[in-house]
Amino acid sequence: MADRDIDPQAVTDLLGALAYGELTAFERLAVDATLAPTLADEAALGAMAVAEYGHFVRLRDFLTARGAEPDGAMAPFVAALDGFHEQTAPADWLEGLVKAYVGDGIAADFYREVSAYVDADTRALVQEVLADTGHAAFAVEHVRAAILAEPAVAGRLALWARRLVGEALTQAQRVMVEREALADLIADGTDLREVVRLLTRITDAHGARMEALGLSS
Amino acid sequence: MADRDIDPQAVTDLLGALAYGELTAFERLAVDATLAPTLADEAALGAMAVAEYGHFVRLRDFLTARGAEPDGAMAPFVAALDGFHEQTAPADWLEGLVKAYVGDGIAADFYREVSAYVDADTRALVQEVLADTGHAAFAVEHVRAAILAEPAVAGRLALWARRLVGEALTQAQRVMVEREALADLIADGTDLREVVRLLTRITDAHGARMEALGLSS
Repeated sequence: MADRDIDPQAVTDLLGALAYGELTAFERLAVDATLAPTLADEAALGAMAVAEYGHFVRLRDFLTARGAEPDGAMAPFVAALDGFHEQTAPADWLEGLVKAYVGDGIAADFYREVSAYVDADTRALVQEVLADTGHAAFAVEHVRAAILAEPAVAGRLALWARRLVGEALTQAQRVMVEREALADLIADGTDLREVVRLLTRITDAHGARMEALGLSS
Repeated sequence: MADRDIDPQAVTDLLGALAYGELTAFERLAVDATLAPTLADEAALGAMAVAEYGHFVRLRDFLTARGAEPDGAMAPFVAALDGFHEQTAPADWLEGLVKAYVGDGIAADFYREVSAYVDADTRALVQEVLADTGHAAFAVEHVRAAILAEPAVAGRLALWARRLVGEALTQAQRVMVEREALADLIADGTDLREVVRLLTRITDAHGARMEALGLSS
């Protein structure tokens, strides 16, 4: 399926969205670090932020090597990603961890699914930059410990995760309406049953992450 | 002067203050990146933030290698540095650039002066992590261009720089009162005339930075 006729604009869109996603992930993790309860946690979040910036650089350089202009490739996704972060600014350290694990998890699953429809080089890079930087285990460990210490936080965090997913879907829909090439990449490459299976895989993975955190989805 | 009897606590204090300073500089530059007017500027600030995190790691590992506990070494300086940043949150991109150049410039001069009184290994590391990461030229270029485009901003930014210096002095004084070993390092190692010369050097360097920005000090 990867070798059918691929619209280069769709590949640039995918890489541009992901690049700006990594740049904002870097900024957001650095902000979340300031909410850390200990200096060790603060430093640990900082290290993850730095890893995200490294991913951004890989994507930017890959775009340049393909003859695309990185800023131009990212520009169409700035409003949606900034909008998502403005609507979902964590009120505390735990909300930040849930957002990074649940929100980035869904985004990563989505990018990975889309990468099935592009060329092998792009797919390899997408999978490389979406590899877990240790954040998942860190978030799960800290959120579970917090719930163990104070079970009441589970309800608040479950609601928070639901808001994150709702806001992510709103912004994703907005992008898909505006970026025809990206939407066509999925629509042309697959039939309706495959789209349903794709959404089922993403939903199942989200449920598994919520369970890992000890939250009801 | 570096080989006289040095209080190891004073060296740990110097390294701890500098390490937490680098960690907060990393966080702050990442936040400032979100205020950037272009994606290229946003990415450039991100790269500088990542460099600061690298300095933090060097200092943390150096503390560990010396048998000091990094979190314990940083802890006494958390309140003063967090207090400084809370009191001087930039309202926009230009205020962020002035803060990074003028504020970090004074802090760097101060750390460099203090490092004259410690062992050679520590001094070499302090000088290494305080080396300019390209931020100075970046700030000067952007602030000068902004003043050229709109001369009225110069007055506002000059006032802002004065507020930064005032707040930095307040916090530095607080640290010196609380950390006797650090204060003694300078007081014991020198006479009053040398302290005056030290302060003159720092003030002169500050004036030169303000002039480079095109601001009256």
